Amino acid sequence: MRWRCTCAYDGTDFEGWQSQVGGNTVQDTIEARLGAIFKRPIRVHGAGRTDAGVHARGQVFHFDADWSHGSQKLLSALSASLRRDIQITSIAGVNVSFHARFSALRKRYVYRFYLGQASPFETRYCWSVGDRSMDLVATEQLAQRFLGTHDFTALAATHHDGKTINPEKTLYRLEFQQEGKKLQLIVEGSGFLYKMVRTIAGTLLQVGRGALTADYVWDCLEKKERREKIVTAPAHGLCLDRVFYAKNFLQNV
Amino acid sequence: MRWRCTCAYDGTDFEGWQSQVGGNTVQDTIEARLGAIFKRPIRVHGAGRTDAGVHARGQVFHFDADWSHGSQKLLSALSASLRRDIQITSIAGVNVSFHARFSALRKRYVYRFYLGQASPFETRYCWSVGDRSMDLVATEQLAQRFLGTHDFTALAATHHDGKTINPEKTLYRLEFQQEGKKLQLIVEGSGFLYKMVRTIAGTLLQVGRGALTADYVWDCLEKKERREKIVTAPAHGLCLDRVFYAKNFLQNV
Repeated sequence: MRWRCTCAYDGTDFEGWQSQVGGNTVQDTIEARLGAIFKRPIRVHGAGRTDAGVHARGQVFHFDADWSHGSQKLLSALSASLRRDIQITSIAGVNVSFHARFSALRKRYVYRFYLGQASPFETRYCWSVGDRSMDLVATEQLAQRFLGTHDFTALAATHHDGKTINPEKTLYRLEFQQEGKKLQLIVEGSGFLYKMVRTIAGTLLQVGRGALTADYVWDCLEKKERREKIVTAPAHGLCLDRVFYAKNFLQNV
Repeated sequence: MRWRCTCAYDGTDFEGWQSQVGGNTVQDTIEARLGAIFKRPIRVHGAGRTDAGVHARGQVFHFDADWSHGSQKLLSALSASLRRDIQITSIAGVNVSFHARFSALRKRYVYRFYLGQASPFETRYCWSVGDRSMDLVATEQLAQRFLGTHDFTALAATHHDGKTINPEKTLYRLEFQQEGKKLQLIVEGSGFLYKMVRTIAGTLLQVGRGALTADYVWDCLEKKERREKIVTAPAHGLCLDRVFYAKNFLQNV
């Protein structure tokens, strides 16, 4: 039996999603709980890795295990004695052709800025960028140009594990929403290069602040040159908001 | 020169407000910053102690020190390299007759409940009490009876440092506000016994859930008997929201 789970986590005190030596990751924590329930090692597969400090409201993962007591009881068992910075928000049986990563059509990230100094209650979840004014028109215009399919080499870090990855990615949505001093950037795409969302966020902020021009950034993009002036926004402002799948995978089995 | 400061803090990782051996308190942290600025030990006086895990949005403290560069620069100096779970929100010169604790007319605490399981982003700041229904009419009626001056011995812990304290306190406001699954209790009073706000919060919850009757609680109060059934709500739902002073103390000097 295959199970699709959704979870939320405060990434502050984790070394990211993906399992690693030392074990202080979200994946390791969930696998430890599943191991305790099923009395054998269970491997979970996440929709995407999140870096150390990055949060999630809608991370999705799947795993295979036999369980005859229904999904609600599995949710309770999995949630029991879990650290309070992880929450399992849903669990459902799915067809075995479902794969949290390979079946994903699209992912949505939200990058949160605070135009000033965020309070101690918000500072873990947004980047406080001070109260200098932002030219949101300039940033919106550049954001519009990023939509569609481009080679995003200039706006990503060199991939850390050395694998060759197709640098062409498609962005479907890139939108700012502001409420008082809270400014958030919503990014939806087919997939993302390493640190690409945080680099887009940092770059759009620099353009809004007048530190970079949109033409400069576009020139980097076209020449596929990662330059020093391109800034990557810090991890703690980023949140994996939602992963989208085809409808047939969302039916419970 | 006397300075009145307002600060906010996430109490999760502190051993409360008041200075103690070990030094992991809000007061110790602020005094360490002031010591670094003024090159001598500076003692700060808080409006009230908050216990380990209790938060504050509007804690007030004062200290005496000569500074000739204006309050804005003092605020910047004090904020520099402060842990991000403390924020100094205002600072102003005041008359030397001002005392953060003794001049306070009234304090406002907010106790936050979550009717269900709060997300990892909110769980540090509220008590998740599950989704059983609450009889808010019964709790509101009991809350109304608590208003005014009473001996609150039955709804407080024995004071921890053994001092004899007048158990008669005056409550000016006790009000629930609900927004979806978020329920908050606003408590304003002249002063509070040790753990009194948390015990009022826990007791009102029990009455709302039908675990205790209002008459039972009132009987405890009148007999000044702290009984086992009276529950103290956990620290992390509590926040010192604001301290009120007479207007003449709010003028800058």
